[in-house]
Amino acid sequence: MKTIGIIGPGLIGGSMAIDLRKRGYASKVLGVEKESLNASAALQMGIIDESVSLEECARRSDIVIIAVPVSAACTILPRVLNIFACQPERKQIVMDTCSTKGGIVLAAAGHPMCRRFVASHPMAGTEYSGPWAAQPSLFDGRACIIANPQESDADAVKEVENLYDHLNMRVIEMDAAAHDVHTAYVSHISHVTSFALALTVLDKEKDEKHIFDLASGGFASTVRLAKSNADMWVPILKENRQNVLQVIDTYINKMQQFRDAICDNDADAIRALIEEGNKIKRIIR
Amino acid sequence: MKTIGIIGPGLIGGSMAIDLRKRGYASKVLGVEKESLNASAALQMGIIDESVSLEECARRSDIVIIAVPVSAACTILPRVLNIFACQPERKQIVMDTCSTKGGIVLAAAGHPMCRRFVASHPMAGTEYSGPWAAQPSLFDGRACIIANPQESDADAVKEVENLYDHLNMRVIEMDAAAHDVHTAYVSHISHVTSFALALTVLDKEKDEKHIFDLASGGFASTVRLAKSNADMWVPILKENRQNVLQVIDTYINKMQQFRDAICDNDADAIRALIEEGNKIKRIIR
Repeated sequence: MKTIGIIGPGLIGGSMAIDLRKRGYASKVLGVEKESLNASAALQMGIIDESVSLEECARRSDIVIIAVPVSAACTILPRVLNIFACQPERKQIVMDTCSTKGGIVLAAAGHPMCRRFVASHPMAGTEYSGPWAAQPSLFDGRACIIANPQESDADAVKEVENLYDHLNMRVIEMDAAAHDVHTAYVSHISHVTSFALALTVLDKEKDEKHIFDLASGGFASTVRLAKSNADMWVPILKENRQNVLQVIDTYINKMQQFRDAICDNDADAIRALIEEGNKIKRIIR
Repeated sequence: MKTIGIIGPGLIGGSMAIDLRKRGYASKVLGVEKESLNASAALQMGIIDESVSLEECARRSDIVIIAVPVSAACTILPRVLNIFACQPERKQIVMDTCSTKGGIVLAAAGHPMCRRFVASHPMAGTEYSGPWAAQPSLFDGRACIIANPQESDADAVKEVENLYDHLNMRVIEMDAAAHDVHTAYVSHISHVTSFALALTVLDKEKDEKHIFDLASGGFASTVRLAKSNADMWVPILKENRQNVLQVIDTYINKMQQFRDAICDNDADAIRALIEEGNKIKRIIR
Protein backbone atom coordinates (compact mmCIF):
# COMPACT_ATOMS: atom_id res chain seq x y z
CA MET A 1 0.00 0.00 0.00
CA LYS A 2 1.24 3.43 -0.93
CA THR A 3 1.23 7.00 0.24
CA ILE A 4 -0.25 9.09 -2.53
CA GLY A 5 -0.16 12.86 -2.84
CA ILE A 6 -3.02 14.62 -4.57
CA ILE A 7 -2.24 18.13 -5.76
CA GLY A 8 -5.77 19.47 -6.25
CA PRO A 9 -8.18 17.08 -4.49
CA GLY A 10 -11.20 18.26 -6.53
CA LEU A 11 -13.45 16.43 -8.99
CA ILE A 12 -10.66 14.37 -10.58
CA GLY A 13 -8.07 14.20 -7.80
CA GLY A 14 -10.69 13.66 -5.11
CA SER A 15 -12.49 10.94 -7.06
CA MET A 16 -9.17 9.15 -7.60
CA ALA A 17 -8.39 9.37 -3.87
CA ILE A 18 -11.76 7.86 -2.91
CA ASP A 19 -11.38 4.76 -5.09
CA LEU A 20 -7.63 4.27 -4.61
CA ARG A 21 -8.15 4.13 -0.87
CA LYS A 22 -11.30 2.00 -1.00
CA ARG A 23 -9.73 -0.47 -3.41
CA GLY A 24 -6.60 -0.98 -1.31
CA TYR A 25 -4.09 0.88 -3.44
CA ALA A 26 -3.43 3.81 -1.09
CA SER A 27 -2.94 3.60 2.66
CA LYS A 28 -2.48 7.35 3.10
CA VAL A 29 -3.59 10.34 1.04
CA LEU A 30 -1.82 13.69 1.33
CA GLY A 31 -3.60 16.66 -0.19
CA VAL A 32 -2.29 19.98 -1.50
CA GLU A 33 -5.03 22.58 -1.89
CA LYS A 34 -4.44 26.31 -1.99
CA GLU A 35 -8.04 27.28 -1.16
CA SER A 36 -8.39 26.75 2.59
CA LEU A 37 -12.14 26.13 2.36
CA ASN A 38 -11.59 23.35 -0.18
CA ALA A 39 -8.77 21.89 1.92
CA SER A 40 -10.99 21.77 5.02
CA ALA A 41 -13.83 20.23 3.03
CA ALA A 42 -11.56 17.55 1.53
CA LEU A 43 -10.30 16.71 5.03
CA GLN A 44 -13.73 16.66 6.58
CA MET A 45 -15.15 14.50 3.78
CA GLY A 46 -12.30 12.05 4.36
CA ILE A 47 -10.97 12.45 0.82
CA ILE A 48 -7.50 13.33 2.16
CA ASP A 49 -5.85 12.40 5.46
CA GLU A 50 -3.63 15.46 5.75
CA SER A 51 -3.48 18.87 4.11
CA VAL A 52 0.20 19.61 3.44
CA SER A 53 2.42 21.95 1.45
CA LEU A 54 3.44 21.07 -2.08
CA GLU A 55 7.01 20.46 -0.88
CA GLU A 56 5.96 18.12 1.94
CA CYS A 57 3.63 16.26 -0.40
CA ALA A 58 6.40 15.75 -2.96
CA ARG A 59 8.83 14.62 -0.23
CA ARG A 60 6.55 12.08 1.46
CA SER A 61 4.50 10.57 -1.37
CA ASP A 62 5.29 7.43 -3.33
CA ILE A 63 3.16 8.76 -6.16
CA VAL A 64 2.18 12.39 -6.67
CA ILE A 65 -0.91 13.04 -8.77
CA ILE A 66 -1.18 16.56 -10.21
CA ALA A 67 -4.88 17.21 -10.78
CA VAL A 68 -5.08 20.97 -11.34
CA PRO A 69 -5.71 23.06 -14.49
CA VAL A 70 -3.01 22.50 -17.10
CA SER A 71 -1.46 25.97 -16.78
CA ALA A 72 -0.84 25.47 -13.04
CA ALA A 73 0.26 21.87 -13.61
CA CYS A 74 3.05 23.04 -15.95
CA THR A 75 4.58 25.18 -13.19
CA ILE A 76 4.00 22.64 -10.39
CA LEU A 77 5.57 19.68 -12.22
CA PRO A 78 9.21 20.98 -12.18
CA ARG A 79 8.88 21.86 -8.47
CA VAL A 80 7.87 18.26 -7.71
CA LEU A 81 10.71 16.88 -9.83
CA ASN A 82 13.19 19.17 -8.01
CA ILE A 83 12.23 17.55 -4.72
CA PHE A 84 12.44 14.04 -6.22
CA ALA A 85 16.01 14.98 -7.24
CA CYS A 86 16.94 15.34 -3.53
CA GLN A 87 16.00 11.71 -2.78
CA PRO A 88 16.43 9.80 -6.05
CA GLU A 89 16.83 6.47 -4.22
CA ARG A 90 13.11 6.59 -3.36
CA LYS A 91 12.18 6.19 -7.02
CA GLN A 92 9.09 8.35 -6.62
CA ILE A 93 6.64 8.93 -9.44
CA VAL A 94 4.67 12.01 -10.48
CA MET A 95 1.77 11.90 -12.90
CA ASP A 96 -0.73 14.45 -14.15
CA THR A 97 -4.35 14.18 -15.25
CA CYS A 98 -4.55 17.15 -17.66
CA SER A 99 -6.83 17.28 -20.68
CA THR A 100 -4.03 18.51 -22.96
CA LYS A 101 -0.69 16.76 -23.11
CA GLY A 102 1.60 18.82 -25.37
CA GLY A 103 2.46 21.50 -22.80
CA ILE A 104 2.93 19.27 -19.77
CA VAL A 105 5.26 16.96 -21.70
CA LEU A 106 7.35 20.00 -22.62
CA ALA A 107 7.29 21.19 -18.98
CA ALA A 108 9.05 17.98 -17.94
CA ALA A 109 11.46 17.74 -20.86
CA GLY A 110 15.09 18.40 -20.01
CA HIS A 111 14.63 18.05 -16.24
CA PRO A 112 17.15 15.56 -14.81
CA MET A 113 14.28 13.65 -13.16
CA CYS A 114 11.95 13.86 -16.17
CA ARG A 115 11.74 10.07 -16.56
CA ARG A 116 9.92 9.86 -13.19
CA PHE A 117 7.02 11.76 -14.76
CA VAL A 118 4.18 9.92 -16.50
CA ALA A 119 1.81 12.06 -18.59
CA SER A 120 -1.76 10.78 -18.41
CA HIS A 121 -5.34 11.79 -19.01
CA PRO A 122 -8.18 9.85 -17.42
CA MET A 123 -11.12 10.56 -19.77
CA ALA A 124 -13.90 11.01 -17.26
CA GLY A 125 -15.53 13.86 -15.41
CA THR A 126 -18.67 15.85 -14.87
CA GLU A 127 -19.46 19.52 -15.33
CA TYR A 128 -18.94 20.12 -11.59
CA SER A 129 -15.75 20.90 -9.69
CA GLY A 130 -14.23 21.03 -6.21
CA PRO A 131 -13.98 18.31 -3.53
CA TRP A 132 -17.80 18.32 -3.34
CA ALA A 133 -17.88 17.00 -6.89
CA ALA A 134 -15.63 14.00 -6.10
CA GLN A 135 -17.44 10.68 -6.36
CA PRO A 136 -16.68 6.97 -6.22
CA SER A 137 -16.47 4.93 -9.43
CA LEU A 138 -16.13 8.02 -11.65
CA PHE A 139 -13.54 6.32 -13.82
CA ASP A 140 -14.95 2.79 -14.04
CA GLY A 141 -14.86 1.45 -17.59
CA ARG A 142 -13.60 4.68 -19.15
CA ALA A 143 -10.52 5.26 -21.29
CA CYS A 144 -7.27 6.65 -19.92
CA ILE A 145 -4.43 7.93 -22.06
CA ILE A 146 -0.79 7.54 -21.16
CA ALA A 147 1.06 9.97 -23.41
CA ASN A 148 4.61 9.44 -24.72
CA PRO A 149 5.30 6.46 -22.42
CA GLN A 150 8.73 6.00 -24.03
CA GLU A 151 9.85 9.23 -22.32
CA SER A 152 9.22 7.79 -18.83
CA ASP A 153 11.00 5.03 -16.90
CA ALA A 154 9.40 1.65 -17.60
CA ASP A 155 8.77 0.96 -13.88
CA ALA A 156 7.01 4.32 -13.53
CA VAL A 157 4.71 3.63 -16.49
CA LYS A 158 3.98 0.16 -15.12
CA GLU A 159 3.06 1.56 -11.71
CA VAL A 160 0.79 4.25 -13.21
CA GLU A 161 -0.92 1.54 -15.27
CA ASN A 162 -1.38 -0.43 -12.05
CA LEU A 163 -2.92 2.65 -10.42
CA TYR A 164 -5.36 3.13 -13.33
CA ASP A 165 -6.15 -0.57 -13.17
CA HIS A 166 -7.40 0.02 -9.63
CA LEU A 167 -9.67 2.73 -11.09
CA ASN A 168 -11.01 0.16 -13.61
CA MET A 169 -9.83 2.23 -16.57
CA ARG A 170 -8.66 0.86 -19.90
CA VAL A 171 -5.27 2.37 -20.66
CA ILE A 172 -4.38 3.50 -24.19
CA GLU A 173 -0.83 4.60 -24.98
CA MET A 174 -0.66 7.49 -27.40
CA ASP A 175 1.59 10.21 -28.73
CA ALA A 176 0.95 13.53 -26.89
CA ALA A 177 0.36 15.44 -30.11
CA ALA A 178 -2.14 12.84 -31.38
CA HIS A 179 -3.93 12.97 -28.03
CA ASP A 180 -4.36 16.74 -28.35
CA VAL A 181 -5.84 16.46 -31.84
CA HIS A 182 -8.25 13.71 -30.77
CA THR A 183 -9.46 15.48 -27.64
CA ALA A 184 -9.99 18.71 -29.59
CA TYR A 185 -12.51 16.75 -31.68
CA VAL A 186 -14.23 14.56 -29.13
CA SER A 187 -14.07 16.70 -26.01
CA HIS A 188 -12.94 20.31 -26.35
CA ILE A 189 -15.26 21.25 -29.23
CA SER A 190 -18.25 19.83 -27.31
CA HIS A 191 -17.56 22.32 -24.56
CA VAL A 192 -17.25 25.23 -26.98
CA THR A 193 -20.51 24.29 -28.75
CA SER A 194 -22.28 24.10 -25.38
CA PHE A 195 -20.93 27.47 -24.26
CA ALA A 196 -21.99 29.04 -27.57
CA LEU A 197 -25.46 27.51 -27.24
CA ALA A 198 -25.85 28.82 -23.71
CA LEU A 199 -24.72 32.30 -24.80
CA THR A 200 -27.17 32.26 -27.73
CA VAL A 201 -30.21 31.43 -25.61
CA LEU A 202 -29.20 33.59 -22.65
CA ASP A 203 -28.88 36.48 -25.09
CA LYS A 204 -32.43 35.95 -26.36
CA GLU A 205 -33.71 35.71 -22.79
CA LYS A 206 -32.97 39.44 -22.42
CA ASP A 207 -36.00 40.05 -24.70
CA GLU A 208 -38.02 36.91 -24.08
CA LYS A 209 -38.23 36.33 -20.36
CA HIS A 210 -39.91 32.95 -20.59
CA ILE A 211 -37.71 31.45 -23.29
CA PHE A 212 -36.58 28.65 -20.97
CA ASP A 213 -40.11 27.54 -20.04
CA LEU A 214 -40.05 25.17 -22.99
CA ALA A 215 -36.51 23.86 -22.52
CA SER A 216 -36.61 20.09 -22.76
CA GLY A 217 -34.29 17.16 -22.19
CA GLY A 218 -32.63 17.62 -25.57
CA PHE A 219 -31.67 21.19 -24.78
CA ALA A 220 -30.42 20.23 -21.31
CA SER A 221 -28.27 17.51 -22.82
CA THR A 222 -26.62 19.72 -25.45
CA VAL A 223 -26.06 22.66 -23.07
CA ARG A 224 -24.97 20.69 -19.99
CA LEU A 225 -21.23 21.21 -20.53
CA ALA A 226 -21.73 24.99 -20.50
CA LYS A 227 -21.75 24.69 -16.71
CA SER A 228 -18.06 23.76 -16.86
CA ASN A 229 -15.53 25.72 -14.87
CA ALA A 230 -13.55 28.58 -16.44
CA ASP A 231 -10.48 27.87 -14.26
CA MET A 232 -10.17 24.52 -15.99
CA TRP A 233 -11.31 25.43 -19.49
CA VAL A 234 -9.47 28.68 -20.20
CA PRO A 235 -6.09 26.89 -19.90
CA ILE A 236 -7.27 23.92 -22.00
CA LEU A 237 -8.50 26.14 -24.83
CA LYS A 238 -5.30 28.20 -24.70
CA GLU A 239 -3.02 25.15 -24.53
CA ASN A 240 -4.74 23.34 -27.36
CA ARG A 241 -5.27 26.50 -29.35
CA GLN A 242 -4.13 25.32 -32.78
CA ASN A 243 -6.16 22.13 -32.76
CA VAL A 244 -9.25 23.75 -31.27
CA LEU A 245 -9.18 26.55 -33.85
CA GLN A 246 -9.03 23.98 -36.63
CA VAL A 247 -12.04 22.11 -35.25
CA ILE A 248 -14.01 25.31 -34.70
CA ASP A 249 -13.36 26.29 -38.33
CA THR A 250 -14.62 22.94 -39.60
CA TYR A 251 -17.59 23.20 -37.26
CA ILE A 252 -18.55 26.72 -38.37
CA ASN A 253 -18.29 25.49 -41.94
CA LYS A 254 -20.72 22.61 -41.24
CA MET A 255 -23.08 24.99 -39.47
CA GLN A 256 -22.91 27.33 -42.46
CA GLN A 257 -23.82 24.42 -44.77
CA PHE A 258 -26.92 23.84 -42.63
CA ARG A 259 -27.73 27.53 -42.73
CA ASP A 260 -27.42 27.64 -46.51
CA ALA A 261 -29.57 24.54 -47.00
CA ILE A 262 -32.31 25.93 -44.73
CA CYS A 263 -32.04 29.41 -46.27
CA ASP A 264 -32.39 27.91 -49.77
CA ASN A 265 -35.38 25.84 -48.58
CA ASP A 266 -33.48 22.89 -50.03
CA ALA A 267 -35.08 19.83 -48.42
CA ASP A 268 -32.72 17.42 -50.19
CA ALA A 269 -29.64 19.23 -48.91
CA ILE A 270 -31.04 19.40 -45.33
CA ARG A 271 -31.86 15.69 -45.52
CA ALA A 272 -28.38 14.81 -46.83
CA LEU A 273 -26.73 16.68 -43.93
CA ILE A 274 -28.99 15.08 -41.32
CA GLU A 275 -28.53 11.58 -42.72
CA GLU A 276 -24.76 12.04 -42.85
CA GLY A 277 -24.88 13.22 -39.21
CA ASN A 278 -27.03 10.19 -38.31
CA LYS A 279 -23.97 8.03 -38.97
CA ILE A 280 -22.91 8.95 -35.46
CA LYS A 281 -25.25 6.10 -34.42
CA ARG A 282 -22.40 3.80 -35.36
CA ILE A 283 -20.35 5.35 -32.55
CA ILE A 284 -22.76 6.50 -29.84
CA ARG A 285 -25.31 3.90 -28.80
CA MET B 1 -63.70 6.19 -21.78
CA LYS B 2 -62.99 7.19 -25.31
CA THR B 3 -62.02 5.81 -28.66
CA ILE B 4 -58.87 7.56 -29.74
CA GLY B 5 -57.31 7.52 -33.17
CA ILE B 6 -53.55 7.82 -33.49
CA ILE B 7 -52.32 8.89 -36.90
CA GLY B 8 -48.67 7.82 -36.68
CA PRO B 9 -48.35 5.47 -33.67
CA GLY B 10 -44.57 6.03 -33.36
CA LEU B 11 -42.46 7.54 -30.58
CA ILE B 12 -44.96 10.29 -29.69
CA GLY B 13 -48.28 8.80 -30.82
CA GLY B 14 -47.40 5.34 -29.48
CA SER B 15 -46.23 6.65 -26.12
CA MET B 16 -49.47 8.63 -25.79
CA ALA B 17 -51.51 5.52 -26.61
CA ILE B 18 -49.72 3.44 -23.97
CA ASP B 19 -50.40 5.86 -21.11
CA LEU B 20 -53.88 6.96 -22.21
CA ARG B 21 -55.00 3.35 -22.20
CA LYS B 22 -53.20 2.41 -18.98
CA ARG B 23 -54.54 5.45 -17.14
CA GLY B 24 -58.14 4.82 -18.10
CA TYR B 25 -58.63 7.60 -20.63
CA ALA B 26 -58.93 5.47 -23.77
CA SER B 27 -60.90 2.24 -24.10
CA LYS B 28 -59.96 1.69 -27.74
CA VAL B 29 -57.03 2.86 -29.83
CA LEU B 30 -57.27 2.98 -33.63
CA GLY B 31 -53.99 3.41 -35.49
CA VAL B 32 -53.23 4.80 -38.93
CA GLU B 33 -49.78 3.84 -40.17
CA LYS B 34 -48.74 3.82 -43.81
CA GLU B 35 -45.68 1.56 -43.29
CA SER B 36 -47.11 -1.95 -42.99
CA LEU B 37 -44.17 -3.18 -40.89
CA ASN B 38 -44.73 -0.39 -38.38
CA ALA B 39 -48.48 -1.06 -38.35
CA SER B 40 -47.93 -4.76 -37.63
CA ALA B 41 -45.42 -3.93 -34.90
CA ALA B 42 -47.77 -1.41 -33.26
CA LEU B 43 -50.54 -4.04 -33.29
CA GLN B 44 -48.34 -6.81 -31.98
CA MET B 45 -46.92 -4.61 -29.22
CA GLY B 46 -50.50 -3.78 -28.18
CA ILE B 47 -50.02 -0.06 -28.79
CA ILE B 48 -53.05 0.01 -31.08
CA ASP B 49 -56.12 -2.27 -31.19
CA GLU B 50 -56.82 -1.94 -34.90
CA SER B 51 -54.92 -0.68 -37.92
CA VAL B 52 -57.39 1.33 -40.02
CA SER B 53 -57.49 3.83 -42.88
CA LEU B 54 -57.30 7.54 -42.18
CA GLU B 55 -60.95 7.91 -43.14
CA GLU B 56 -62.15 5.12 -40.85
CA CYS B 57 -60.04 6.51 -38.01
CA ALA B 58 -61.52 10.00 -38.43
CA ARG B 59 -65.06 8.57 -38.62
CA ARG B 60 -64.87 6.34 -35.54
CA SER B 61 -62.64 8.26 -33.09
CA ASP B 62 -63.80 10.65 -30.38
CA ILE B 63 -60.37 12.26 -30.51
CA VAL B 64 -57.91 12.01 -33.38
CA ILE B 65 -54.25 12.63 -32.56
CA ILE B 66 -52.06 13.52 -35.52
CA ALA B 67 -48.52 12.52 -34.59
CA VAL B 68 -46.64 12.60 -37.89
CA PRO B 69 -44.02 15.03 -39.28
CA VAL B 70 -45.44 18.53 -39.63
CA SER B 71 -45.45 18.56 -43.45
CA ALA B 72 -47.65 15.44 -43.55
CA ALA B 73 -49.77 16.72 -40.66
CA CYS B 74 -50.67 19.85 -42.64
CA THR B 75 -52.18 17.75 -45.45
CA ILE B 76 -53.81 15.20 -43.14
CA LEU B 77 -55.58 17.75 -40.93
CA PRO B 78 -58.07 19.05 -43.56
CA ARG B 79 -58.90 15.46 -44.54
CA VAL B 80 -59.82 14.68 -40.94
CA LEU B 81 -61.86 17.87 -40.62
CA ASN B 82 -63.71 17.00 -43.88
CA ILE B 83 -64.89 13.75 -42.29
CA PHE B 84 -65.87 15.52 -39.06
CA ALA B 85 -68.04 17.79 -41.24
CA CYS B 86 -70.13 14.74 -42.27
CA GLN B 87 -71.10 14.01 -38.65
CA PRO B 88 -70.94 17.35 -36.81
CA GLU B 89 -73.33 16.12 -34.09
CA ARG B 90 -70.55 13.85 -32.78
CA LYS B 91 -68.48 16.87 -31.71
CA GLN B 92 -65.25 15.08 -32.47
CA ILE B 93 -61.86 16.62 -31.78
CA VAL B 94 -58.59 16.50 -33.72
CA MET B 95 -55.27 17.56 -32.23
CA ASP B 96 -51.69 17.49 -33.45
CA THR B 97 -48.38 17.08 -31.66
CA CYS B 98 -46.08 18.93 -34.09
CA SER B 99 -42.93 20.78 -33.05
CA THR B 100 -43.85 23.86 -35.09
CA LYS B 101 -47.24 25.47 -34.83
CA GLY B 102 -47.39 28.28 -37.43
CA GLY B 103 -48.05 26.03 -40.43
CA ILE B 104 -50.55 23.65 -38.85
CA VAL B 105 -52.63 26.54 -37.51
CA LEU B 106 -52.75 27.94 -41.06
CA ALA B 107 -53.69 24.50 -42.43
CA ALA B 108 -56.86 24.52 -40.29
CA ALA B 109 -57.76 28.18 -40.78
CA GLY B 110 -60.81 28.77 -42.92
CA HIS B 111 -62.08 25.19 -42.74
CA PRO B 112 -65.73 25.10 -41.60
CA MET B 113 -64.78 22.62 -38.84
CA CYS B 114 -61.58 24.43 -37.84
CA ARG B 115 -62.75 25.04 -34.27
CA ARG B 116 -62.69 21.26 -33.63
CA PHE B 117 -58.91 21.37 -34.07
CA VAL B 118 -56.63 22.00 -31.10
CA ALA B 119 -52.98 22.76 -31.91
CA SER B 120 -50.62 21.31 -29.33
CA HIS B 121 -47.02 20.34 -28.76
CA PRO B 122 -46.09 17.94 -25.98
CA MET B 123 -42.46 18.85 -25.26
CA ALA B 124 -40.97 15.41 -24.77
CA GLY B 125 -39.25 12.81 -26.86
CA THR B 126 -36.07 10.90 -27.46
CA GLU B 127 -33.77 10.67 -30.46
CA TYR B 128 -35.43 7.40 -31.53
CA SER B 129 -38.51 6.86 -33.68
CA GLY B 130 -41.11 4.29 -34.71
CA PRO B 131 -43.47 2.17 -32.55
CA TRP B 132 -40.39 0.47 -31.04
CA ALA B 133 -39.43 3.82 -29.50
CA ALA B 134 -42.80 4.25 -27.74
CA GLN B 135 -42.54 4.07 -23.96
CA PRO B 136 -44.69 4.58 -20.89
CA SER B 137 -44.39 7.78 -18.83
CA LEU B 138 -42.55 9.65 -21.61
CA PHE B 139 -44.52 12.83 -20.91
CA ASP B 140 -44.68 12.80 -17.10
CA GLY B 141 -43.86 16.19 -15.62
CA ARG B 142 -43.00 17.82 -18.96
CA ALA B 143 -44.45 20.96 -20.53
CA CYS B 144 -47.12 20.87 -23.22
CA ILE B 145 -48.10 23.84 -25.36
CA ILE B 146 -51.62 24.50 -26.55
CA ALA B 147 -51.27 27.07 -29.31
CA ASN B 148 -53.88 29.72 -30.14
CA PRO B 149 -56.59 28.18 -27.89
CA GLN B 150 -58.95 31.03 -28.72
CA GLU B 151 -59.24 29.63 -32.26
CA SER B 152 -60.70 26.33 -30.99
CA ASP B 153 -64.03 25.50 -29.34
CA ALA B 154 -63.79 25.81 -25.56
CA ASP B 155 -65.03 22.24 -24.98
CA ALA B 156 -62.38 20.91 -27.38
CA VAL B 157 -59.57 22.78 -25.58
CA LYS B 158 -60.89 21.54 -22.24
CA GLU B 159 -60.94 17.94 -23.44
CA VAL B 160 -57.40 18.16 -24.84
CA GLU B 161 -56.26 19.60 -21.50
CA ASN B 162 -57.94 16.66 -19.80
CA LEU B 163 -56.09 14.29 -22.11
CA TYR B 164 -52.74 15.93 -21.33
CA ASP B 165 -53.63 15.82 -17.66
CA HIS B 166 -53.78 12.01 -17.99
CA LEU B 167 -50.24 12.21 -19.41
CA ASN B 168 -49.15 14.20 -16.35
CA MET B 169 -48.13 17.19 -18.45
CA ARG B 170 -48.30 20.83 -17.40
CA VAL B 171 -50.19 22.73 -20.06
CA ILE B 172 -49.05 26.20 -21.17
CA GLU B 173 -51.22 28.23 -23.52
CA MET B 174 -49.25 30.25 -26.01
CA ASP B 175 -49.47 32.12 -29.27
CA ALA B 176 -48.37 29.88 -32.20
CA ALA B 177 -45.83 32.42 -33.42
CA ALA B 178 -44.28 32.82 -29.96
CA HIS B 179 -44.11 29.03 -29.65
CA ASP B 180 -42.12 28.82 -32.87
CA VAL B 181 -39.62 31.44 -31.73
CA HIS B 182 -39.15 29.75 -28.35
CA THR B 183 -38.70 26.24 -29.74
CA ALA B 184 -36.19 27.53 -32.31
CA TYR B 185 -34.04 28.61 -29.33
CA VAL B 186 -34.54 25.78 -26.87
CA SER B 187 -35.07 22.81 -29.15
CA HIS B 188 -34.42 23.24 -32.87
CA ILE B 189 -30.98 24.86 -32.54
CA SER B 190 -29.85 22.04 -30.22
CA HIS B 191 -30.54 19.58 -33.00
CA VAL B 192 -28.66 21.64 -35.57
CA THR B 193 -25.63 22.03 -33.26
CA SER B 194 -25.61 18.27 -32.66
CA PHE B 195 -25.81 17.48 -36.36
CA ALA B 196 -22.98 19.93 -37.09
CA LEU B 197 -20.87 18.39 -34.32
CA ALA B 198 -21.45 14.88 -35.66
CA LEU B 199 -20.55 16.01 -39.19
CA THR B 200 -17.37 17.70 -37.92
CA VAL B 201 -16.05 14.64 -36.12
CA LEU B 202 -17.20 12.13 -38.75
CA ASP B 203 -15.31 14.22 -41.31
CA LYS B 204 -12.12 14.02 -39.28
CA GLU B 205 -12.60 10.28 -38.86
CA LYS B 206 -11.86 9.88 -42.57
CA ASP B 207 -8.19 10.70 -41.73
CA GLU B 208 -8.04 9.62 -38.10
CA LYS B 209 -9.59 6.18 -37.82
CA HIS B 210 -9.47 6.04 -34.03
CA ILE B 211 -10.79 9.52 -33.32
CA PHE B 212 -13.77 8.10 -31.42
CA ASP B 213 -11.67 5.94 -29.08
CA LEU B 214 -11.49 8.88 -26.69
CA ALA B 215 -15.11 9.99 -26.95
CA SER B 216 -16.44 10.51 -23.45
CA GLY B 217 -19.77 11.19 -21.76
CA GLY B 218 -19.58 14.90 -22.56
CA PHE B 219 -19.27 14.22 -26.27
CA ALA B 220 -22.07 11.66 -26.19
CA SER B 221 -24.34 14.15 -24.46
CA THR B 222 -23.75 16.99 -26.91
CA VAL B 223 -23.98 14.78 -30.01
CA ARG B 224 -26.92 12.59 -28.91
CA LEU B 225 -29.57 14.53 -30.84
CA ALA B 226 -27.65 13.95 -34.09
CA LYS B 227 -29.28 10.52 -34.13
CA SER B 228 -32.63 12.22 -34.75
CA ASN B 229 -34.72 11.23 -37.72
CA ALA B 230 -34.58 13.20 -41.00
CA ASP B 231 -38.27 12.50 -41.76
CA MET B 232 -39.18 14.50 -38.69
CA TRP B 233 -36.47 17.17 -38.78
CA VAL B 234 -36.41 18.25 -42.41
CA PRO B 235 -40.03 19.48 -42.16
CA ILE B 236 -39.39 21.20 -38.81
CA LEU B 237 -36.36 23.11 -40.09
CA LYS B 238 -38.23 24.07 -43.27
CA GLU B 239 -41.40 25.09 -41.40
CA ASN B 240 -39.57 27.16 -38.83
CA ARG B 241 -37.06 28.48 -41.33
CA GLN B 242 -37.10 32.18 -40.43
CA ASN B 243 -36.71 31.62 -36.69
CA VAL B 244 -34.12 28.89 -37.07
CA LEU B 245 -32.02 31.02 -39.43
CA GLN B 246 -32.04 33.84 -36.92
CA VAL B 247 -30.87 31.55 -34.11
CA ILE B 248 -28.19 29.98 -36.30
CA ASP B 249 -26.87 33.45 -37.12
CA THR B 250 -26.66 34.41 -33.46
CA TYR B 251 -25.07 31.06 -32.71
CA ILE B 252 -22.41 31.38 -35.43
CA ASN B 253 -21.68 34.85 -34.11
CA LYS B 254 -21.12 33.50 -30.57
CA MET B 255 -18.94 30.73 -31.95
CA GLN B 256 -16.94 33.30 -33.89
CA GLN B 257 -16.42 35.31 -30.68
CA PHE B 258 -14.97 32.18 -29.09
CA ARG B 259 -12.79 31.60 -32.12
CA ASP B 260 -11.47 35.16 -32.02
CA ALA B 261 -10.74 35.02 -28.28
CA ILE B 262 -8.85 31.74 -28.66
CA CYS B 263 -7.06 32.92 -31.80
CA ASP B 264 -5.96 36.12 -30.00
CA ASN B 265 -4.79 34.02 -27.01
CA ASP B 266 -6.97 36.37 -24.97
CA ALA B 267 -7.50 34.53 -21.68
CA ASP B 268 -9.70 37.31 -20.27
CA ALA B 269 -12.03 37.21 -23.26
CA ILE B 270 -12.26 33.40 -23.16
CA ARG B 271 -12.97 33.54 -19.43
CA ALA B 272 -15.66 36.21 -19.91
CA LEU B 273 -17.45 34.08 -22.52
CA ILE B 274 -17.28 30.94 -20.37
CA GLU B 275 -18.49 32.71 -17.25
CA GLU B 276 -21.36 34.31 -19.17
CA GLY B 277 -22.24 30.83 -20.51
CA ASN B 278 -22.05 29.42 -16.95
CA LYS B 279 -25.17 31.46 -16.15
CA ILE B 280 -27.08 28.58 -17.72
CA LYS B 281 -26.72 26.97 -14.28
CA ARG B 282 -29.59 29.19 -13.23
CA ILE B 283 -31.80 27.29 -15.71
CA ILE B 284 -30.45 23.75 -16.00
CA ARG B 285 -29.82 22.02 -12.70
